Amino acid sequence: MVPRYSRPRMTAIWSPVNRYRIWFEIEALACEAMARRGDIPKEAAEIIRTKGDAALAAFSDADLARIDEIEAETRHDVIAFLTWLAEKVGPESRFVHLGMTSSDVLDSCLAVQLTQAADILLEDMDTVLAALKKRAYEHKQTVTIGRSHAIHAEPTSFGLKLAGHYAEFARNRRRLVAAREEIAVCAISGAVGTYAHIDPEIEQYVAEHLGVKAETISSQVIPRDRHAAFFCTLGVIASSIERLAVEVRHLQRSEVREAEEFFHAGQKGSSAMPHKRNPVLSENLTGLARLIRSYVTPALENVALWHERDISHSSVERNICPDGTVTLDFALGRLASMMEKLVIYPDQMLANVESLGGVVHSGEVLLVLARAGISREDAYKIVQRTAMATWTKLGTEEGKTFRENLEADPDIAGRIDKKVLDDALDPARHLRAVDQIFDRVFAE
Amino acid sequence: MVPRYSRPRMTAIWSPVNRYRIWFEIEALACEAMARRGDIPKEAAEIIRTKGDAALAAFSDADLARIDEIEAETRHDVIAFLTWLAEKVGPESRFVHLGMTSSDVLDSCLAVQLTQAADILLEDMDTVLAALKKRAYEHKQTVTIGRSHAIHAEPTSFGLKLAGHYAEFARNRRRLVAAREEIAVCAISGAVGTYAHIDPEIEQYVAEHLGVKAETISSQVIPRDRHAAFFCTLGVIASSIERLAVEVRHLQRSEVREAEEFFHAGQKGSSAMPHKRNPVLSENLTGLARLIRSYVTPALENVALWHERDISHSSVERNICPDGTVTLDFALGRLASMMEKLVIYPDQMLANVESLGGVVHSGEVLLVLARAGISREDAYKIVQRTAMATWTKLGTEEGKTFRENLEADPDIAGRIDKKVLDDALDPARHLRAVDQIFDRVFAE
Amino acid sequence: MVPRYSRPRMTAIWSPVNRYRIWFEIEALACEAMARRGDIPKEAAEIIRTKGDAALAAFSDADLARIDEIEAETRHDVIAFLTWLAEKVGPESRFVHLGMTSSDVLDSCLAVQLTQAADILLEDMDTVLAALKKRAYEHKQTVTIGRSHAIHAEPTSFGLKLAGHYAEFARNRRRLVAAREEIAVCAISGAVGTYAHIDPEIEQYVAEHLGVKAETISSQVIPRDRHAAFFCTLGVIASSIERLAVEVRHLQRSEVREAEEFFHAGQKGSSAMPHKRNPVLSENLTGLARLIRSYVTPALENVALWHERDISHSSVERNICPDGTVTLDFALGRLASMMEKLVIYPDQMLANVESLGGVVHSGEVLLVLARAGISREDAYKIVQRTAMATWTKLGTEEGKTFRENLEADPDIAGRIDKKVLDDALDPARHLRAVDQIFDRVFAE
Amino acid sequence: MVPRYSRPRMTAIWSPVNRYRIWFEIEALACEAMARRGDIPKEAAEIIRTKGDAALAAFSDADLARIDEIEAETRHDVIAFLTWLAEKVGPESRFVHLGMTSSDVLDSCLAVQLTQAADILLEDMDTVLAALKKRAYEHKQTVTIGRSHAIHAEPTSFGLKLAGHYAEFARNRRRLVAAREEIAVCAISGAVGTYAHIDPEIEQYVAEHLGVKAETISSQVIPRDRHAAFFCTLGVIASSIERLAVEVRHLQRSEVREAEEFFHAGQKGSSAMPHKRNPVLSENLTGLARLIRSYVTPALENVALWHERDISHSSVERNICPDGTVTLDFALGRLASMMEKLVIYPDQMLANVESLGGVVHSGEVLLVLARAGISREDAYKIVQRTAMATWTKLGTEEGKTFRENLEADPDIAGRIDKKVLDDALDPARHLRAVDQIFDRVFAE
Repeated sequence: MVPRYSRPRMTAIWSPVNRYRIWFEIEALACEAMARRGDIPKEAAEIIRTKGDAALAAFSDADLARIDEIEAETRHDVIAFLTWLAEKVGPESRFVHLGMTSSDVLDSCLAVQLTQAADILLEDMDTVLAALKKRAYEHKQTVTIGRSHAIHAEPTSFGLKLAGHYAEFARNRRRLVAAREEIAVCAISGAVGTYAHIDPEIEQYVAEHLGVKAETISSQVIPRDRHAAFFCTLGVIASSIERLAVEVRHLQRSEVREAEEFFHAGQKGSSAMPHKRNPVLSENLTGLARLIRSYVTPALENVALWHERDISHSSVERNICPDGTVTLDFALGRLASMMEKLVIYPDQMLANVESLGGVVHSGEVLLVLARAGISREDAYKIVQRTAMATWTKLGTEEGKTFRENLEADPDIAGRIDKKVLDDALDPARHLRAVDQIFDRVFAE
Repeated sequence: MVPRYSRPRMTAIWSPVNRYRIWFEIEALACEAMARRGDIPKEAAEIIRTKGDAALAAFSDADLARIDEIEAETRHDVIAFLTWLAEKVGPESRFVHLGMTSSDVLDSCLAVQLTQAADILLEDMDTVLAALKKRAYEHKQTVTIGRSHAIHAEPTSFGLKLAGHYAEFARNRRRLVAAREEIAVCAISGAVGTYAHIDPEIEQYVAEHLGVKAETISSQVIPRDRHAAFFCTLGVIASSIERLAVEVRHLQRSEVREAEEFFHAGQKGSSAMPHKRNPVLSENLTGLARLIRSYVTPALENVALWHERDISHSSVERNICPDGTVTLDFALGRLASMMEKLVIYPDQMLANVESLGGVVHSGEVLLVLARAGISREDAYKIVQRTAMATWTKLGTEEGKTFRENLEADPDIAGRIDKKVLDDALDPARHLRAVDQIFDRVFAE
Repeated sequence: MVPRYSRPRMTAIWSPVNRYRIWFEIEALACEAMARRGDIPKEAAEIIRTKGDAALAAFSDADLARIDEIEAETRHDVIAFLTWLAEKVGPESRFVHLGMTSSDVLDSCLAVQLTQAADILLEDMDTVLAALKKRAYEHKQTVTIGRSHAIHAEPTSFGLKLAGHYAEFARNRRRLVAAREEIAVCAISGAVGTYAHIDPEIEQYVAEHLGVKAETISSQVIPRDRHAAFFCTLGVIASSIERLAVEVRHLQRSEVREAEEFFHAGQKGSSAMPHKRNPVLSENLTGLARLIRSYVTPALENVALWHERDISHSSVERNICPDGTVTLDFALGRLASMMEKLVIYPDQMLANVESLGGVVHSGEVLLVLARAGISREDAYKIVQRTAMATWTKLGTEEGKTFRENLEADPDIAGRIDKKVLDDALDPARHLRAVDQIFDRVFAE
Repeated sequence: MVPRYSRPRMTAIWSPVNRYRIWFEIEALACEAMARRGDIPKEAAEIIRTKGDAALAAFSDADLARIDEIEAETRHDVIAFLTWLAEKVGPESRFVHLGMTSSDVLDSCLAVQLTQAADILLEDMDTVLAALKKRAYEHKQTVTIGRSHAIHAEPTSFGLKLAGHYAEFARNRRRLVAAREEIAVCAISGAVGTYAHIDPEIEQYVAEHLGVKAETISSQVIPRDRHAAFFCTLGVIASSIERLAVEVRHLQRSEVREAEEFFHAGQKGSSAMPHKRNPVLSENLTGLARLIRSYVTPALENVALWHERDISHSSVERNICPDGTVTLDFALGRLASMMEKLVIYPDQMLANVESLGGVVHSGEVLLVLARAGISREDAYKIVQRTAMATWTKLGTEEGKTFRENLEADPDIAGRIDKKVLDDALDPARHLRAVDQIFDRVFAE
């Protein structure tokens, strides 16, 4: 996580003060629940809540320094926080954290933070989806060439291309909802998950008030398969970002120029070459995708903790939880904005469709010949031969269109009706299902 | 995928003949759908079905060789198959594959294969779940030490440990159901997904008869975020396998000996050391988990195909689809059998619980002191001091139990009632929530 | 590893018979060394050698089945082999494997196999290097456009581009030599590496005769950091393959068409679109690179074996050792052949250089203005403005060349000498260092 | 990278001011070289050097803000810096960066930073090596049990175990020296590496004065296979750290207690369980290893940049270059200190060696029987049977030592001389090669 690729709303989630607020909330809620059960005095719970809320509201760098100071001695972050809290709350602090273990606080806090982060990411996804939908409808009828292997295949519509990305992000949104549910789970179950010193009711109460579920069964920790599944989902989303970014990079390349990232007034593409306008946003997104994807493997390696827990996952999570969510938030924001502002060149798209002299219609011509009774094998040879000839001589003096070459071919001449050929070479055929597909994609 | 770690039911899915059967099924269904629409003659569709079914039923090595021979020339696997099929079907073969593109067949086939594989994996999961449930109930009340950081923490029950793994595999099963749905999707939409030469009805018909859904929008291919999500799920399951495998490895280590993999008559642990009985199954599962996890990254890298598709994903999938499902099937089978037969030593578990002289009850003693009005800070110091003293001298002549040391401590002596201490040092406290937790875990 | 992406010379290394031959060689050499020391009778060593050699020379499927049968009972592969060997050698077999442990055989064998594999890979690298060198010299003076961000930057020579890849593969070759040295290490040191039952001289003798080094210090196994380093190197080489493959894919795309993979007579690019000629080899190489790279992480995870060894690495290596070397061998072979036969279109390269009306010379023009006393900031603005205008109107009626627009610009007109401008716009400037660079690259 | 796992010396390398200092150094050196060639006035180079040095020496937050402000408009970091520099240097700034491209500066700077980082890491490695060597010699003769599969195998010395780790880190040091050489390479070759606007002499001069080599052939950038190889090496080192960390975690577990991380006065192991002393440093190192390893894949994915470069690598490197080197520096520092202070319990080691009643000598007993003429197969059965019996009854009333059971076995009784058995059961046998191995390991 570097500031360059961060947005404040997401980084705030991972700030020390947000963490301490959540820690306190968990402790205060647990006290309330214990007070309701009569485990501790009601007044104690109230004092803890009041004084604690006040201390957190007034939380300053001095408090941060004080906690760090205590941790330097105890080498234990939760104990450091509790000691600081005791200084603020006074004698009633002895009722705080009763029967709990550090992980109860740490893991429940992480659940809250990841849930907060997931909520932002879901909003981000909505922004991306909105941008894609808007541009897709805008270019629903914009003819462009479809490419397989980066070779011209058959015409399609640019809106259809975008609709495909929309559908992919819609799937990703559903995956993210599921991933959010995976990690929106807290636990207050004690040292090895047996509730030996604390009643399960406490956990239930805290969970409800935190807006998450209580874990069905925890060890000392919430099992890390949940977090692994969460990061896998981030990895899939990142890869979808990359797919769209790579598409934009291709469209902007000098020879294609079908679309271009918005270029700001005053922007400079290169220090040495003033003519440059580079697709730097989509290239950047490609790199960010690599980063987000790189968090998947350590998250998976974190699952196999020893026995009821070891703490090897902690250093990993201190990095990948902020880095993963902050980077993905930034990337989704950049992607949405890039797509909203993308400069699209329909004329160039059409020019590219036509640039190969019509060979992109070879598929339909093949069917026409087949329908005319020529065997598939023979039809294929005739069309392949004609298309290759067209393509090879393109732009030379002998260059002819695919149609001209077809009509001149002795094996075809006279066998195919002109109108049938007109129809076979008409780009419109490739847009006839667009409405139906849009209905399917955007109905969801 | 090596034979050593393969089971025939899963490898059969990835055999050439299964692939060709599915390819034919897709082509035959498409012909039927076209015939229903009047696109091709009904008789043609019937002949294709009849002769094709016969050819596939009689499929032999000679057929395999013939297809390979054609592919050597055309360098295109689907064309090779279609040519072979034409040789079997005769003139009506010209109605086969009309308006379709190779990917329609390849991707729809992969969807069927992965769905078949997922069904087996779901059965495997059930076997694992059954084994875990059985052993969990068997040892619901078996006291064992819970460990954090591999250091004795507090007692728990061995059944509870297994119930935790059960819950994790139950989550994994749900994830696998979702992952199956991700990839149970076919597409018959033509060269760039526009249905330019084929009606969407064909796709719908084929999907229904294959038992999968039709893709909402495809390019030339079914988008690879679906497959990436599938492999991520395999990676999470693998990591859960590793967690349980690592637990068994720990339990079997010479100093712990709380459980042991079943050792067969005639089995040899080591060529050089006849005394060895090694946890080779769980170690093997650890390695297999690494393998399965390693398929996640290439699956993610496969998402960003260029434009409407490039074929870079193909070589990856030819490896990771068989390897991932075959290896996971094998691993789940081995895991289930290992857990079913695991030899468990409750006496040794109890001996280990008691081996530290009772310091594992320090948590409850801390609470007792706190309840007796001693500040948290002071109570901690007293208990820490006493526990450390107990532990350090364990097994020496001056060695005393934690209880003896507590009672001798000047800061405690006389302040804690004997009965309270009895209660604090009673392992039973740690099993009191077991029923409640089991109800939650196995209710699901 | 699938047959489709395998070559026989490399797969032979990983065949059971090659493994058993090496196992026997290790055992036989160890016996010879022991006999020299007088640890066992000389005649015994001779009989073992003679009968063993004969048994391996005659090794058949029946032998394979017999070993598998024994392993099914003992569940130990080395013991199974030794038992089979004893059946062949007779009573003297009691002197075989004396004081050794299975890992002595397994790890030393793996060292030999990986060394054999590395030798083939080094030859493969030489073929790639030769192809690159040949094509680089062939196109040393072929002007082509250099691109950053896939946007035309400045001219370069196609030979220079290839020379860059050559230099990268030359570095990779050096890395592979180092990686080979990493794993060309055997160990015969007993159960935990203490030589408790076998003299270090035996190890030394076996190492020398196997053509590898003896490990400085082993535990039960040769430490896996060596193998991890080896697979890292394969991963780097794979990534370099991908870089070149991606270059070819770009060059072949319809709008660029500067080069094309050789298209065989009879080859079919698409079942549906007869006009297609796709860069399927380079796309395939891209996918194979993902596979080879995926072996890096499990190889790294294999390092942290428990204590003197656990066997979790074994299942990983049974997969990635064959898969990694076989796939890389295939990929290098395909790459060399693809580059040798690559069809290169210098005319199209030149056309592309000129396609942007000369703006690709903006860098030198910027320097010209700076030399003429215009501040860097101002010069940049002028050139950027002029280049953008040129580019935007390219191909339209108002379209002018960069030169025309420069000469018409009021801030430039009259300030730059025509000859200076000629020089600034001359592609030759970009090739002037080619000889010098070639000397550096190919001198190595 | 989080402050918790960072050390200032390494983070300083990645601070903006260090980056700007290096950028300026590169620009100033290039000016000097150009002045020597007469490309620009000598006085200009001198003024640039003097004023620039002064500006950098006085570099403050205000300068940082100014550069950020310019970048916000130009969206180009190098141009922002050059503009700021021009404000400081005055009119002579027009001679700065002449004929260079941004990547010349960026990539050469990264080379310097990574080289600085590598130098620190090499020092770190020396600290680790020194700690390991010291403790290895200290415990050269400390008998401990060697374990395979975490099952007692045969005795070894604790010093020997540490010597194994020493040898591994010595290999890693050599790898790091090679990795440093990989990235200690700068380039000043212009927009696409052709030296079109700048003479190769400039590059040579800058390289020499920066203390790195000039790249043989660059595109716009230094090829990323170099950086990939660097990060692979960090990944291997991280895995070796993990291996040692896992060893310590095992040694400290409650049932083993052969060693313990140093526990500070005032330290608290658990908020809930005062008796806990956890191996938190080694667990932390395990997690950090996962992080460092996770940088390998994105570094490999960075290699295949498009054509002469795309900028997707940049965001990746902005993260993994600091994160990788800072985290590894911290981990090596923590590892060295942990090993220096590791509390080692030789008595407990000896107790563990003896805890299985002597069955750990089964290997030598097997050889003794073989030497006594019993066939390997029979000897194995006898020893296995006896060892299993010993082990199973250990700690029970019928429990006997391995020796007692051997002597009572009808198949052995009377066939083995008592002295031979004494010798076979003597742990000293396992230490006899220790000196020789130490000589080999530490001679290096």
